[in-house]
Formats: sequence, C-alpha cells, structure tokens
Amino acid sequence: MTEHTPPTTPAREAGSTPTAAELGAASAPPSDPPRRGLSRRALFGLAGAGAAGLAAGAGATAAITAAVSAPASATGVTTVYPFGGAHQSGITTPAQDRLHFAAYDVSAGTTREELIELLQDWSVAAARMTQGQEVADGGAVDGSPLAPPVDTGEALGLPASGLTITFGFGPTLFTAEDGTDRFGIADRRPAELEKLPRFTGDNLQAGLTGGDLCIQACADDPQVAVHAIRNLSRIAFGRASIRWSQLGFGRTSSTSTSQVTPRNLFGFKDGTANVKSEETKTVEEQVWVQDGDSAAWLSGGSYLVVRKIRMIIETWDRAQLQEQERVIGRSKGEGAPLSGGKEFTEPDFDAVGATDQPLIDKHSHVRLAHPTQLKGTKLLRRGYNFVDGNDDLGRLNAGLFFMSYQRSPKQFIDVQRALATDAMNEYIKHVGAAIFAVPPGASKDGWVGETLFA
Amino acid sequence: MTEHTPPTTPAREAGSTPTAAELGAASAPPSDPPRRGLSRRALFGLAGAGAAGLAAGAGATAAITAAVSAPASATGVTTVYPFGGAHQSGITTPAQDRLHFAAYDVSAGTTREELIELLQDWSVAAARMTQGQEVADGGAVDGSPLAPPVDTGEALGLPASGLTITFGFGPTLFTAEDGTDRFGIADRRPAELEKLPRFTGDNLQAGLTGGDLCIQACADDPQVAVHAIRNLSRIAFGRASIRWSQLGFGRTSSTSTSQVTPRNLFGFKDGTANVKSEETKTVEEQVWVQDGDSAAWLSGGSYLVVRKIRMIIETWDRAQLQEQERVIGRSKGEGAPLSGGKEFTEPDFDAVGATDQPLIDKHSHVRLAHPTQLKGTKLLRRGYNFVDGNDDLGRLNAGLFFMSYQRSPKQFIDVQRALATDAMNEYIKHVGAAIFAVPPGASKDGWVGETLFA
Ligand code: HEM
Ligand code: HEM
Repeated sequence: MTEHTPPTTPAREAGSTPTAAELGAASAPPSDPPRRGLSRRALFGLAGAGAAGLAAGAGATAAITAAVSAPASATGVTTVYPFGGAHQSGITTPAQDRLHFAAYDVSAGTTREELIELLQDWSVAAARMTQGQEVADGGAVDGSPLAPPVDTGEALGLPASGLTITFGFGPTLFTAEDGTDRFGIADRRPAELEKLPRFTGDNLQAGLTGGDLCIQACADDPQVAVHAIRNLSRIAFGRASIRWSQLGFGRTSSTSTSQVTPRNLFGFKDGTANVKSEETKTVEEQVWVQDGDSAAWLSGGSYLVVRKIRMIIETWDRAQLQEQERVIGRSKGEGAPLSGGKEFTEPDFDAVGATDQPLIDKHSHVRLAHPTQLKGTKLLRRGYNFVDGNDDLGRLNAGLFFMSYQRSPKQFIDVQRALATDAMNEYIKHVGAAIFAVPPGASKDGWVGETLFA
Repeated sequence: MTEHTPPTTPAREAGSTPTAAELGAASAPPSDPPRRGLSRRALFGLAGAGAAGLAAGAGATAAITAAVSAPASATGVTTVYPFGGAHQSGITTPAQDRLHFAAYDVSAGTTREELIELLQDWSVAAARMTQGQEVADGGAVDGSPLAPPVDTGEALGLPASGLTITFGFGPTLFTAEDGTDRFGIADRRPAELEKLPRFTGDNLQAGLTGGDLCIQACADDPQVAVHAIRNLSRIAFGRASIRWSQLGFGRTSSTSTSQVTPRNLFGFKDGTANVKSEETKTVEEQVWVQDGDSAAWLSGGSYLVVRKIRMIIETWDRAQLQEQERVIGRSKGEGAPLSGGKEFTEPDFDAVGATDQPLIDKHSHVRLAHPTQLKGTKLLRRGYNFVDGNDDLGRLNAGLFFMSYQRSPKQFIDVQRALATDAMNEYIKHVGAAIFAVPPGASKDGWVGETLFA
C-alpha cells in the first residue's frame, strides 16, 4: 500500500506508517525546481520550516494534464470528473448530492503575482483532489514526521466521490469597493459583472454577501467536499480567507435527464424544467459565455449567482395543500403543471378552470419564472437544501441555497425581477447573495483564470 | 401508485394528485375513535380546522406493531431498522452516515397527560418514518386539498435509508431547574441522571446545553434525517420546541465490526477500539441499563451523553505529523497503536523506544481513554463530524459532535475526567453538552417512555 498512486488512479489510500526509506523514495529531491510558476510556497508555507525536504509541487503538471483528460467513470462514489477542459466541471455536471461552498476575500497586501500563484496552486490541488488524490505529494501520512502533513487526511481512503471544484471571480476582485485596481485587472472586468441590484423583499445580511473569489465543491460524499474546501482554504493561507460559506446537504436540482428530480424543503420536486446538460443547444445559448460577449477571456465560462434563501417553513407547513400548489403552480406529488398532465408536460398558462380562473395562478412561481413569460430566458439551476441549526424560537433555520449559472447576469436579474409578485415571497426571505464570473476550464498545461491574466 | 403502502413496505412514493374518490378511500371515517390514548390532536392540531376529516391517527397501532418486528434488510439506502423492541434502535445499530440531533424543551403549561400524548404521537410517527412511510396517513399529498398536508413531503420517493429515531429524557424533565416536579415523575428520576459536572477546560455556550427531551435521527440520507426531525418538531407544536440542534455530515465511529473505520476532522481513524454491537457481552455490561440498576423503568435503556466539541483545526493542521500522532497515540495512516502492529492490534502501553520514552505518550488520548487505565470502563461512541459555516476570522467552525451511550453516566464522567491532561486539549474546545436517559424500545403495542409513566 502506498499514498503515491499515479495521477490517473481515482483512490486515496491510507497506507501503514512508512519507513524512513519509503519516505525518502516517496519525496522528490529537495532540489527539484518549481514548475511553471506553480508556487511551492502554498504547499510548503503551511508546513513551516520543517517541510523544507518535502517536494509538494512535484508531479503537478502531470496531475493537471491527467485531470484534463480523465474520463467520467460509472456513477456513485467512484465517479471521477475531469478538472480541466473547455468548461469548468461542476456546472453541467449532473448535480452531485452534497455541497460545500465558500466565498473568499483576497488578503490585504497580496500582489498580482501572489494572486496568480494562488490560482495556480488552487488549480494543481483541485486537479489532484477531483481525481481522488491527496492535495499534494506526501499527503496526510507520507511526508516527514517533523513536518505538518500537506493533506489534512479526513478523506484518506475515500474515492473521488464525483468531486468537482469550480472557481469564480467576484466584481471586487477587479475593482475594490473603494475603486482601487488592486491587481491590474480593472479594465478586464466584464461590464456585466456588477454587484447584483437590490430586489424587492431583499433582506440581505452583511455576513452572507459578496466575495472576491469563490469555490463551489460538490461531491456525493460530504466529507470529500468539506476536505476540498478545507485544504484549498489552507493553501490560501495569508493570501485569501473565507468570507462566508455554506454546506448544502441535498441537491435541489437535476442538471441531467439521467437524474431523478429531487425535492426541496417545501416538499416539491425542484429542477423539473431546469436546463439539462443534454440540451446542448440551450446550454450554449443560455449557459456558456460566447466569443463576442462582453469579455473575451471569459469565453467558455459562465456567471454564477448565489442566493441564500431562508424558508419560513412553519408558515409554509400551515398552508393548505391547495395553497402550496397554487404558489408553485405544480402539484406536490407528481410535480405536474396545474394545467394537467405529468411532471414533464409543458404548462399551459392559458388553461382555465370551471370559474374561468387560470389553472396556473397569475402569481405562481412557475408562471412568473417560465421562459415564455421572459422572452425565452433560462437559467441552469444548481441549488442545495440547507439546515443551519435552529433560531432562538426553536424553528429550524432551513432553506434553499440557490445557485444558478447563466451566460449573462441579466438572465438571473430578469427572472428575479419577474418574481417580485411571486406568491412564494410570503414564505421565503433572501438573506445572502453574491455574483461571480466563472472562467473557462484549465487548459492542458494551464490553470483556472489563466485567460484573465494573460 | 398510491401513498398508502402497508406498514411493512419500506418506501414512500409520490403518487399523482389523487382524485376525490381516492382521497375518500384513503382516509378512515372521521368517526374512527382515537387509539389507546394516541392523540389525534398532534397530527390534527397542525392541520387546523380544515383537517377535521383527516384520519391521521388511523392505523397507528398497526404501524408500531409492524415496526417492532420489521427485519433489517440489505445495507444501503433501502435498509430498514425496526423501531420497537427490547432496546431503541440507533444505539447498537451500525452507525449511519448522517445525523440530525435536536434537544427539546417541554412548553410551559404542558400537563403530564399532554406530555404522555406527545410521546405516544412521536412513537407512532417515528415507527412509520423508520419504515419508510410518511408521518401519518394522508401524507404530503393525499389529504384534503383544503388542509395543510400532515407530512412535509421532502422525503417523498425516498426509501427508509436506514433511518433510526432514538428518544431521550433530560434531568430537567423530572425536576425543573427551579425544583418543580412538573409531570409527577420527580421521584422516578434515576439518581445518576444529573446535569454533567463541570470538566477542566469546559467552554460551554448556553445555547448548546441541556434539554428536557432529545431526538437523535440517523440515516444514510441526510434529507431523511432532516425530514424526521422536522416532522417530529411539527407534531410537538405547542407542547415542546427545539432548544438546540445539530446536523452531522459524517459518522466518526464504527459501532459494528462490519463497518470500515471512518475518519474524524483531525484526519484520524475514529472508532477503532469502540464497543461493537457484535461484542454482546460487553454491550450488556457497558451499554444497557440492567435490572437492579438505579431505575427499573430504564432497564434495557441507556444513558446518552452529547458533547459538541469544536476543533481548532488551523492549529492542528500546523502541528507536525509526529506531534499529531503523539497526541492521539496512534498512527495517522493505518490507525495502529504507536507501540506497533496494525489497526486492531492492542496497544502496549509499557513499550518504550530507544530513549526509554514510552512509545504511546503518557498524555496521549488513547492511553488516557483506554479501559485498562480506567478499571475496564468502556463507552459506545457514536459521534459525527460537523461544519457550521465559518467564524469571523474565516476559520471553518468545525469539530466533532461526540455522542456516547453507556449503562451509567459515571462511565463517561470517569473517561472525561481522565482526559483532563489529554494532549488533545490544546486543539479542542468543548462548547456544548447534555445528558439524557434513553428508555428501552417500544413494546409491541406500546410507546417509547411507557415504562416511565406506568
Ligand atoms: C426558496 C426559493 C425557491 C423555491 C422553493 C423554488 C422552487 C421551484 C419549484 C418547485 C419549481 C418547479 C419545478 C422546476 O421546474 O424546477 C421552480 C421552477 C423554477 N424556478 Fe424556482 N424556486 C425558488 C427560487 C427561485 C429563484 C430565486 C429563481 C430565479 C430568480 C428561480 C427560478 C426558477 C425557474 C427559472 C424555474 C423554472 C420555471 C419553468 O421553466 O417552468 N427559483 N422553482
Ligand atoms: C474532538 C474530540 C475527540 C477526538 C478527535 C477523538 C479521537 C479519538 C481517536 C482518533 C481515537 C482512536 C481510535 C479509536 O479507538 O476510536 C479515540 C479513542 C477513544 N476516545 Fe476519543 N476523541 C475525542 C473525544 C473523546 C471524548 C470526549 C471521549 C470521552 C470522554 C473520548 C473517548 C474515547 C475512547 C474511550 C477511546 C478508545 C480508547 C481505547 O480503548 O483505545 N474521546 N478518540
């Protein structure tokens, strides 16, 4: 048994305590040069002085290259998704069951050069972890006993579990709140990448908004998602730190026709009319930024909007079944439009009942959010259920951590504005919000964000 | 497709919207008498006036009876555990992957009669949910459209997922803080059931301690565990409300030799030397309250100690591998005792190294907690990893939600006192604590807690 699985092997294994000889063999010579600007500092910095003999950066190029081309395997915890490619994984990837999301702020005093290094280090680490490897060579147990392990170890023995790691850049990365151009990229900010406008009913909490950078880690095992965010945060030490974060325990959207539609905490199927990855034409038109859109470096990327939406579940739970269904515009059991049919029947907004009332209420969520009401606008939704303990009144602090990917922020803004008169607003409260430009995937020898700094 | 699966069928199914005829057929006649004191109020109360026609209590006896004798099926999400029996499930049951725990306070003014009704209602609902059914007949979608659904619906379509629901009684249920005997059971309090003493290094937060009642919901799907706590909280409305609660995303213990040892957030295997359900003699001696112990009604039950332990993971992550292993007393990779061997080799506390230093440090966690150092005392540990977002400094608010079951609270107290000089204390902070007497399982026609009120 050894920790040093080749990059293509999708498994972390806990070996027995290695002998000194094994340790020697496992580490590349300390004189190995750092690769292509992939800083050794991050992976070393943590380890402190004792780590001088550890070759954390070794094999980095190989890791990214392999990760770019790794095929997705069978479903379940053994699933492995590529890290690199034309697009980042974690967007059209069939939504995994669990989420750990974190928004980061770049630390004061960090230079452009250091930010680039951070993105490179993150890319190397993410490429490895998505392939089921530890964050760096040496890992949790095969480094020097006199150094802190480079990997925190809680994912030892666990397979890749379908892990995807998706990076995003907030508007403040380009221009700080005070207008400063910290990293010389102010002029590269896409005009559309702006703090979201205030929407009717917004109840945002300062601690749940914004961020210079973000990482979305999705996996079928929460321990694997948590391990990813923890180790990426550790790598960022001194350069960026978590501003706010969220665990999601259950996906609320299908993003693939191969998936069963899950339920949100209102008890309704969620994701029925979502953009599915199989609809390749819609995905191109609605999800990926295209050549000729506002920023060339973002071509092949997307925009991520995040909304933390608290559900007032006690009020919801006291509403009649009929009222709940009216609010959504679909039946609770089957998830069929109230105009009739089955889950995937198209809603008929013109259908009326005996009393000439529309079967799908004028203020129902599904009517207001439907593309036919919005000049064809669609979003790729990728949200998660959350429960953050309970409040002082003993009510579960529960809701939907809404995330959507779209080619332009305008798509989200248009839908959210249309929801101003949504009957659902009585039962929800938007408490968190952020927007990020999500760059294209890492190229074969590159890193996420390379096109921005090129 | 129908919601009305017989009690032995381990599956909730989302049917299409039922016709009025189906609704009528599904509901027992409104004149059905309530069973054996199983109050219809709980399941009705929520529903308000509109629910008068809903026979929520119908079939309750059948549900419990079936649940008492249901066999455990194959592993995975289709696993079904019995609800009733000599002992409550969720103790020696192979630890499931996910946890939702809640401590409740009984509402002011609630009578003894109402408390009994609550426990009966909880038993009926728990029996059903553990068998993969909705919380009551009618469920999320087959009730009257003019009534709030009796089930919140987010588990529709999900199998039982190995759900167990385990109830406990805190010291304050017997005697309130001010000494009041609210429910006429003060004289039935086992002398041992007392608020835990203060331990060295305790850093308890008021919002994370105590509770008159508790429910531990464990399942292999977090949505199923959350659904259980949510619906049981709803049933309790007006009679008890959540005082504090916790989600755990990954088990940190094996409680069966059939399970692979998982890892905690220090990256170490946790549960290696745990009491395993297969060790039937040890389980009898160390876990179950026996006839002749301090309270006859608790015979076949146990005591649950809960400690919310925050890990200072950034400090831990900066410690050398050697220091981490010294603190635990085991190797990080294999989990073998530092005296040598494999994971399940017995530690040799007398073994010394070249410099005559003990191989397993005097202040290591494993030495201090080992039964040979504690007159044979053992605990059945059943903890979970948690991450509750991050703190203001951007550090993950992570740790171990420690739970242990033991025949007497003294066992936990002795171990925790021995840990006063634990080298691990530099890296952890106990922030929450509670103790509960866990009654035996429901009998064939009974409910959890029946022996206490007999
Ligand atoms: C707690 C908040 C929310 C809940 C519970 C919720 C729930 C639902 C449900 C049950 C559906 C119908 C099934 C489906 O097609 O997925 C739906 C559809 C949809 N929702 Fe939401 N939603 C929420 C917030 C939002 C927000 C903030 C947006 C965007 C601004 C949004 C956009 C959409 C869209 C575009 C559809 C598809 C409409 C269609 O094409 O039929 N939702 N939502
Ligand atoms: C964050 C806090 C804790 C961590 C990280 C932790 C971790 C561990 C680890 C890694 C082991 C060795 C593997 C095993 O046998 O399970 C262990 C053993 C053990 N721990 Fe803990 N533990 C914690 C708190 C506690 C507490 C509060 C108690 C009880 C007061 C406790 C009691 C035990 C016992 C009885 C053993 C088995 C010792 C033996 O028989 O070898 N632990 N713990």
